[in-house]
Amino acid sequence: MNRQKVITMVHGSGGQATENLIDEIFDKEFDNDTLHEMEDSAVVPGSGRIAITTDSFVVSPLEFRGGDIGRLCVCGTVNDLLMRGAIPKYLTCGFILEEGLRVETLQRVVHSMAETAKEAGIQIVAGDTKVVEGNGGLYINTSGVGFVPEGVNISAKKARAGDFILVSGTMGDHHAAVLSERMSIDSNIESDNAPLGEMVNGLIKAGVNLHVLRDITRGGLGTVLKELAKASGKVFYIEESKVPVTPKVRDFCGLLGLDPIYMGNEGKMVAIVAPEDKEKALGIIRTSKYGEYASVIGCVAEPGEDEAGDLIMRTAIGGKRRMEALQGEGLPRIC
Amino acid sequence: MNRQKVITMVHGSGGQATENLIDEIFDKEFDNDTLHEMEDSAVVPGSGRIAITTDSFVVSPLEFRGGDIGRLCVCGTVNDLLMRGAIPKYLTCGFILEEGLRVETLQRVVHSMAETAKEAGIQIVAGDTKVVEGNGGLYINTSGVGFVPEGVNISAKKARAGDFILVSGTMGDHHAAVLSERMSIDSNIESDNAPLGEMVNGLIKAGVNLHVLRDITRGGLGTVLKELAKASGKVFYIEESKVPVTPKVRDFCGLLGLDPIYMGNEGKMVAIVAPEDKEKALGIIRTSKYGEYASVIGCVAEPGEDEAGDLIMRTAIGGKRRMEALQGEGLPRIC
Repeated sequence: MNRQKVITMVHGSGGQATENLIDEIFDKEFDNDTLHEMEDSAVVPGSGRIAITTDSFVVSPLEFRGGDIGRLCVCGTVNDLLMRGAIPKYLTCGFILEEGLRVETLQRVVHSMAETAKEAGIQIVAGDTKVVEGNGGLYINTSGVGFVPEGVNISAKKARAGDFILVSGTMGDHHAAVLSERMSIDSNIESDNAPLGEMVNGLIKAGVNLHVLRDITRGGLGTVLKELAKASGKVFYIEESKVPVTPKVRDFCGLLGLDPIYMGNEGKMVAIVAPEDKEKALGIIRTSKYGEYASVIGCVAEPGEDEAGDLIMRTAIGGKRRMEALQGEGLPRIC
Repeated sequence: MNRQKVITMVHGSGGQATENLIDEIFDKEFDNDTLHEMEDSAVVPGSGRIAITTDSFVVSPLEFRGGDIGRLCVCGTVNDLLMRGAIPKYLTCGFILEEGLRVETLQRVVHSMAETAKEAGIQIVAGDTKVVEGNGGLYINTSGVGFVPEGVNISAKKARAGDFILVSGTMGDHHAAVLSERMSIDSNIESDNAPLGEMVNGLIKAGVNLHVLRDITRGGLGTVLKELAKASGKVFYIEESKVPVTPKVRDFCGLLGLDPIYMGNEGKMVAIVAPEDKEKALGIIRTSKYGEYASVIGCVAEPGEDEAGDLIMRTAIGGKRRMEALQGEGLPRIC
């Protein structure tokens, strides 16, 4: 591998070259006994109730300020497990390498995955590598399995009238960071890609009456809240002025005419909690890693006629706006 | 969707167009309550010991005689679970669609996945869709979770001196079928892509003393046996004349100078069994679906000096050949 600086089709043959690639890059970084076994499946301890999720990552560029596709994919899958109240346990990764990918780029990405998995406390137990023709790109699928503790029951459908809606931090950071790289704008904005285990575990351990958790990714806060409103059949009210956005992201969006409410994040979540636990939940999220700028942004109410599933925003200038999920492209795609 | 004949970038926005695509194609075909919930993770019943696996499928063309990428990916993941003696339970699928993919092609592939999942008795519980620029291609990652029954312990390392080596059918069919399509040769060869649950469950239920199971995919029988010989530290002897190959595949290989021993299958396995169970195992595989041409092809022995991990083939003309894993490209790639 050392003298081969780029991935070639032979790395996907399934023969000796594939074995070398796996040994020298993946197995070394993801060092654990289950993976070393190189079996068709990993056999691991189970649990009475499990959470399962999958996500593919196609971001370009592969590396950006504050993160890379490796950190992104681990965070994305870990967070999807956490959003059901599950303890993330096992991660699989499927790599599709385009011919021409630099080996040192792959090494950095894989190292980043290993570090992020360590931070998130999840074990990488199975992997797969394919090589396709192309221009040096890289796609990663990560699937995850978590254990759902007894009594935990968090679901998109469970928002109740009277509940409060919290977000765990500032909106649009990841989207703005990737767009900045793409457009070669020196915005200095960092991606927020992060695993949210500390805040979610904190909420569950403290016995907060959590009804809904949802991470805010592709489609942004607006799309996520609209989906949750539809799933619950309630009406959601939010206040634009309460939605946290950093000054840098606000300036960036102003410049390009973008709306941070529809921009993707990779380390933020919505929590919908029972009214009596609003302050407790806010306190726990704010004191956790990655939750400093958490904010209560609105509430859930019984719908009036023709209002079931509506998301209504009081705008900063005092108007009311009925919000929809992101329509069409909406804004420059990042994944 | 009906009037849009091809996938466009907007289907990957995460907004309304993505939702429509999921509703009208994936959710309809993979119809089940867990998937309908559209949560970040599926929460499902677990088990004391679970098997986990992942695989990405990049085959081109997407459809070929006897199968398609949809049947292929379900079979591949189901078989990887079966090879550890696990009962396949849950499947996730991550789709990466290239812009320009025909919607009706996607529909056929997704339908084929649904049918194959039904045949294999596995439930599709989570999915993800991304759209990238390109030329109408399609990559699918499938990850799977299975339950490992108590007492079952099948592993690549467990081959013992005296064991017999069986293959469940003819070699090279899938590889030859895909190459035929690629090269526009009207060979009439069909892919063998199939789920192997019936034969594996049959062996386990009958209490056959199974030491190793391994499906024969990329790299072919030669690569698989070489890996298993290395994992066990024994020496494997096989007889070329006992390796089943259909006349059609043999002719095709003769024409192109290919070796069926290194060609990929997608519905065949190696079983290594204790000597007393050789005939029983062979009978069970032969009477199962997809196992008609099963054959005992060799045995495992204690290695002599410098022989640990060797794979030695007695060729059809009586010579002895020390076999290696597939080197370099070896033969035209199909994935």
